[in-house]
Amino acid sequence: MKLGMGLVGPGFIAAHHLDAVRRLGNVEVVGIAGSSLESATKRARELNAGRGYADYHELLADPAVHVVHNTTPNHLHREVSLAALRAGKHVISDKPLAATMEEARELYEAARAANLAHVVTFNYRGYPLVQQARAMIGKGKIGPAVFVHGCYLQDWLTDERAYTWRLDPKLGGASSALGDIGSHWCDLAEHVTGARITAVLADLHTVVPVREVPATSAKAFTGKATKGTQKRKITSEDLATVLLRFDNGARGCVTVGQVLPGHKNDLRLEVNGREASLAWRQEQPNELWIGHHAKPNKVLTRDPALLDPAARAYAHLPAGHPEAWADAFRNVIADAYAWIQGGAKPKAKPIALPTFADGYRNSLVVDAMLKSHAAGGLWQPV
Amino acid sequence: MKLGMGLVGPGFIAAHHLDAVRRLGNVEVVGIAGSSLESATKRARELNAGRGYADYHELLADPAVHVVHNTTPNHLHREVSLAALRAGKHVISDKPLAATMEEARELYEAARAANLAHVVTFNYRGYPLVQQARAMIGKGKIGPAVFVHGCYLQDWLTDERAYTWRLDPKLGGASSALGDIGSHWCDLAEHVTGARITAVLADLHTVVPVREVPATSAKAFTGKATKGTQKRKITSEDLATVLLRFDNGARGCVTVGQVLPGHKNDLRLEVNGREASLAWRQEQPNELWIGHHAKPNKVLTRDPALLDPAARAYAHLPAGHPEAWADAFRNVIADAYAWIQGGAKPKAKPIALPTFADGYRNSLVVDAMLKSHAAGGLWQPV
Amino acid sequence: MKLGMGLVGPGFIAAHHLDAVRRLGNVEVVGIAGSSLESATKRARELNAGRGYADYHELLADPAVHVVHNTTPNHLHREVSLAALRAGKHVISDKPLAATMEEARELYEAARAANLAHVVTFNYRGYPLVQQARAMIGKGKIGPAVFVHGCYLQDWLTDERAYTWRLDPKLGGASSALGDIGSHWCDLAEHVTGARITAVLADLHTVVPVREVPATSAKAFTGKATKGTQKRKITSEDLATVLLRFDNGARGCVTVGQVLPGHKNDLRLEVNGREASLAWRQEQPNELWIGHHAKPNKVLTRDPALLDPAARAYAHLPAGHPEAWADAFRNVIADAYAWIQGGAKPKAKPIALPTFADGYRNSLVVDAMLKSHAAGGLWQPV
Amino acid sequence: MKLGMGLVGPGFIAAHHLDAVRRLGNVEVVGIAGSSLESATKRARELNAGRGYADYHELLADPAVHVVHNTTPNHLHREVSLAALRAGKHVISDKPLAATMEEARELYEAARAANLAHVVTFNYRGYPLVQQARAMIGKGKIGPAVFVHGCYLQDWLTDERAYTWRLDPKLGGASSALGDIGSHWCDLAEHVTGARITAVLADLHTVVPVREVPATSAKAFTGKATKGTQKRKITSEDLATVLLRFDNGARGCVTVGQVLPGHKNDLRLEVNGREASLAWRQEQPNELWIGHHAKPNKVLTRDPALLDPAARAYAHLPAGHPEAWADAFRNVIADAYAWIQGGAKPKAKPIALPTFADGYRNSLVVDAMLKSHAAGGLWQPV
Repeated sequence: MKLGMGLVGPGFIAAHHLDAVRRLGNVEVVGIAGSSLESATKRARELNAGRGYADYHELLADPAVHVVHNTTPNHLHREVSLAALRAGKHVISDKPLAATMEEARELYEAARAANLAHVVTFNYRGYPLVQQARAMIGKGKIGPAVFVHGCYLQDWLTDERAYTWRLDPKLGGASSALGDIGSHWCDLAEHVTGARITAVLADLHTVVPVREVPATSAKAFTGKATKGTQKRKITSEDLATVLLRFDNGARGCVTVGQVLPGHKNDLRLEVNGREASLAWRQEQPNELWIGHHAKPNKVLTRDPALLDPAARAYAHLPAGHPEAWADAFRNVIADAYAWIQGGAKPKAKPIALPTFADGYRNSLVVDAMLKSHAAGGLWQPV
Repeated sequence: MKLGMGLVGPGFIAAHHLDAVRRLGNVEVVGIAGSSLESATKRARELNAGRGYADYHELLADPAVHVVHNTTPNHLHREVSLAALRAGKHVISDKPLAATMEEARELYEAARAANLAHVVTFNYRGYPLVQQARAMIGKGKIGPAVFVHGCYLQDWLTDERAYTWRLDPKLGGASSALGDIGSHWCDLAEHVTGARITAVLADLHTVVPVREVPATSAKAFTGKATKGTQKRKITSEDLATVLLRFDNGARGCVTVGQVLPGHKNDLRLEVNGREASLAWRQEQPNELWIGHHAKPNKVLTRDPALLDPAARAYAHLPAGHPEAWADAFRNVIADAYAWIQGGAKPKAKPIALPTFADGYRNSLVVDAMLKSHAAGGLWQPV
Repeated sequence: MKLGMGLVGPGFIAAHHLDAVRRLGNVEVVGIAGSSLESATKRARELNAGRGYADYHELLADPAVHVVHNTTPNHLHREVSLAALRAGKHVISDKPLAATMEEARELYEAARAANLAHVVTFNYRGYPLVQQARAMIGKGKIGPAVFVHGCYLQDWLTDERAYTWRLDPKLGGASSALGDIGSHWCDLAEHVTGARITAVLADLHTVVPVREVPATSAKAFTGKATKGTQKRKITSEDLATVLLRFDNGARGCVTVGQVLPGHKNDLRLEVNGREASLAWRQEQPNELWIGHHAKPNKVLTRDPALLDPAARAYAHLPAGHPEAWADAFRNVIADAYAWIQGGAKPKAKPIALPTFADGYRNSLVVDAMLKSHAAGGLWQPV
Repeated sequence: MKLGMGLVGPGFIAAHHLDAVRRLGNVEVVGIAGSSLESATKRARELNAGRGYADYHELLADPAVHVVHNTTPNHLHREVSLAALRAGKHVISDKPLAATMEEARELYEAARAANLAHVVTFNYRGYPLVQQARAMIGKGKIGPAVFVHGCYLQDWLTDERAYTWRLDPKLGGASSALGDIGSHWCDLAEHVTGARITAVLADLHTVVPVREVPATSAKAFTGKATKGTQKRKITSEDLATVLLRFDNGARGCVTVGQVLPGHKNDLRLEVNGREASLAWRQEQPNELWIGHHAKPNKVLTRDPALLDPAARAYAHLPAGHPEAWADAFRNVIADAYAWIQGGAKPKAKPIALPTFADGYRNSLVVDAMLKSHAAGGLWQPV
């Protein structure tokens, strides 16, 4: 039987959820819900995405929909995901799971109780070389990890005329850069190392404290000035550096920023072990750097023939035929639907697949960062 | 109305045709034909690809199929494509268009006469930065082109136990490396520069003159030894360098090889103009190097905000979110179906879309290379 | 008149001081002093470095010596430099200026009072593209700096059998990695930005807490095991991350480590301004990355024709002819001797030349880092 | 005893000869000869290079001069080198050895008969990783070589207002780009592989057929327009591609050009063997890429601890402390003086040191290229 999918929140990222789902070949796109029947129907046509619904309640009531993709703005995540779970739908939610740590826990508990699949799109896990790094570390190939570091740097908020609802605490949550992209890095660091962040010390900063905001809120990733702008004071951070401690004794550090010219989506993760180092860059995702002390460094290409079996399943093309963002996203969605097809039993969850448990976990980490900064830069346990 | 697609030849590349078609969202995968009903049905199930047909004749007779993807081995291209055109189907054929230049012309003429869409998958055209390079050159941004050079290097035939039907002139055509991958480079060079290769001087070589061949012919991209191998003399080239002359006065050079350790799918194209240079690598497809004489060189990222309008339509993600092989392939297939949806009128063909005209053109170029080499390395007009 | 130079402390780095001095063409290498007349004479012969002295006192008493290079181990810096100043010699000292902040101040004050040239070899300032970055920032080319970050990573202490006197607080000072290489990074960050670090928050760690130490102390940069080793507890840090605040409002972060496999001498500095970013790597010193938000990033090669006049004087070869570590070192030494030739007047000091003032300043910064860590990771003013 | 060196031809490159010689520490710079006593004296002062001579005859007559560096323009190489040999001086000559193949043979034979050291500055041999590549290939680490390819690309002649005496056949020889820089590549290819080029097929082109020439001939590497220019027809090539055959059965290809925007001094050499590949770039000289078919590729850093003993002697700094052009040049000069110190016996010649034999050999290769092109692009034996 083909599973039916419905999507709530047809913004920028919705098209990529649809794209990933279509590539599976065994999922039916049933329809989408937005702010009105009219707009949803129009968008459904644009995206070849089935029918439009008047609102998400109507979508949830449709028995043809088995899986709900929640791509609403952050402040609606909780409401829509909870309603979907109550309606007996499997849920694939964009990150962050919810606007606060408390809501994240509520969602995680609701999902666990519901015996339904619950997925959060920490999509960078879907890169084959991310899984390769995880497999190598898990098998002791780099020795005990001693340092975990990196960054997630962007520049799309450089211009003070750029604005996004993510900067409004009411819509995007208390944190901006950390919640939006730092969260991805933290999930990746924990997933790849298999270790947990136990304490953080955060230094947050708002480089652009006043922005010109258009009358109607701009979409993400557009920096165009519109007529009728107004100045708005910004309180969320657009730059942050956080010191980290992990439960395996490793130290760490990550810098997150969205106002750093020239960096587009520059997520980097490096793990230094006692025997070797691994480094991976999202913008060059087909290469894994392997650093050695007393022999030449290596560059492992995403070559299925050279990958660990745990990573090989995420690679679809021969070496040298690069895979990228959409392929990694598809891998996460494929894992989700494979889990659902098999009954969504907790024990059968694909190891790489991020769930509401990870989403909740992530909110604890980001929350600790905010607390650390609020305390003036003190170590804060997670 | 949804167009229906059928596929003939369910090998390695078939899955990627299906993937590209599915991402369009408005095409129905009707079914596939292979060597038997049983194998086709089995493969159709594996690939979520509709029904299986007993043979390609049955597929062509199905009125639900509007577009035929021809992914058969090279020596069957002509037969299947011709039959499809006669059956009134639009045809999307893998390259090379046919086994010989004469067959290629026959196909091109048949397609032109049929008033049907005819497409050859020179898929590297689908990369946004390839279109960017084409647009920049077309608009004079680098001045008159003076040198066009590059390579297409692989290593999967390095091991003498690796074998593929492409090395058998009866199945793969007279040329191996040039026909298989050199053809891609030549198409790209002409497409990007807007100039035509007018003469070639080729130096071909067979680095591995004897291979261990399994009883049953190995699939492409596998180098595993099988029981019951036998030695086979190889006459097709696995390494070639070709000097080029273009109709705009530019000189050129390309090296093609499949036995060069460490190179996976290393296609590089550089065009030097009087004002600037452009260089692009398929393995790092999100970067276009722009070389200058008296100012700093630039690295143009695949950033939709910075692309020429002609290239922007081929980019689907914000800067820093890399796109890759499958995304480029999808772009070519999307252009093909857009053309078909609009009636497949010659004048409406998307500029970037490669057709049987290009496939025929390409066979002329490769044929001239073989002639040049056969003559002992003399300049051969195309 | 040719200036005469004498060198005290003929270890690893001595050869590079001699090399730099020789390249000037107008300095006479008079001789060297070590631990005995015999060893100094032997080493002088090996290095073609004039005569050997019985001890540094004898060298300082030689009127043919005008400039003293102090390349002794850290714990002897103060004693030798002070004696040289008292003997009326110009002093070029390796960093750190002295073992403690108090000694550093003493030296700085002594040098200032003596009306002699006083130089500390923060040699990375001598790279042409470091001067280019400084010039660009000084002229406002990147707008106000908002973030200054980077690292200085090595791996030569990865092996627990590696040992150096730098790890012994009595010989190397309280700090190891920070004092040894972090100091270089801090000097560079302040020099390039023209801003001062006003506060630090440091997290130090000793990854390898026990080392096998040879009976006789190993030289730097050798990790060979020797007969007759013994275990020694290590208290100095071999890994550190420090958060920074600058007097222009910029934030910063630096990681320093000497146990990170694959990193050889990986000093990186990036400065993000409101208009553009600059990034430089010591291991690829002929390239300066210029990041932009709304136009393509650039890679500025060390091309004399494209450099700021302030940087051009430090470039000696045409573009594409790489310059490197020894050339940068020579530039610092050349500035020092040019200053000395001109009378060593304070106002005539070449801007790029690091003096005892910078050495003292640097000791304040490193000292604040140690205090911050000792306090459990609190912000510490410099 | 200190050897005395004298230099004839105090242009751009002279300063680098002096620099290399000074770094040896045991050579005395005696003086230089140019076009007049006045100019030589002035230049000697500028360069701290001893005394000026009225002409090269006077320099050769000075018994204090043991070694003559011939850095005159190409058309004077023969005359000066022959006179130096006749005067009993060891000779270090810039390449090309002479203006024609016949003259090159004459010089080679004169040098051999004279029992004096004879060196040609194919300086790229002096890079440690070039010697590493040579050692690895010699020891069979990459298996039999099958393809040798690369380029030497520059852009300093891009502007039609750039001019150099190298473009005038009477002063620079019949060939421009090939003789000037292609010669370096050919020497390197033969030296690194230990194989000889046996046949060539060359395609030469003059991209800029007319140049604006200043009244007084411009120095190399300056492209400034001067008052009173005149148009001059250019017949020498500024772009060339050459197919190669080696005596070990390997094929090859090299492109040489000086009008390709963005390429500064872009010499690249790659050797593909049956077991592995090696690739080296002059602009990133501290990295050697090692390509593998069935395991990850490596990047060997110039790390003395990892180098072959034959290469280690050419590395002077620890890994990560980059060495570059001047260091490689010094290595060649150091080998030359070590040979001379030891009596310049033919059997004692350092293996890496290029001699007049290599210079003559090189002229044969370039001459064959010119002949091949003149014949319309036919294979020409060397």
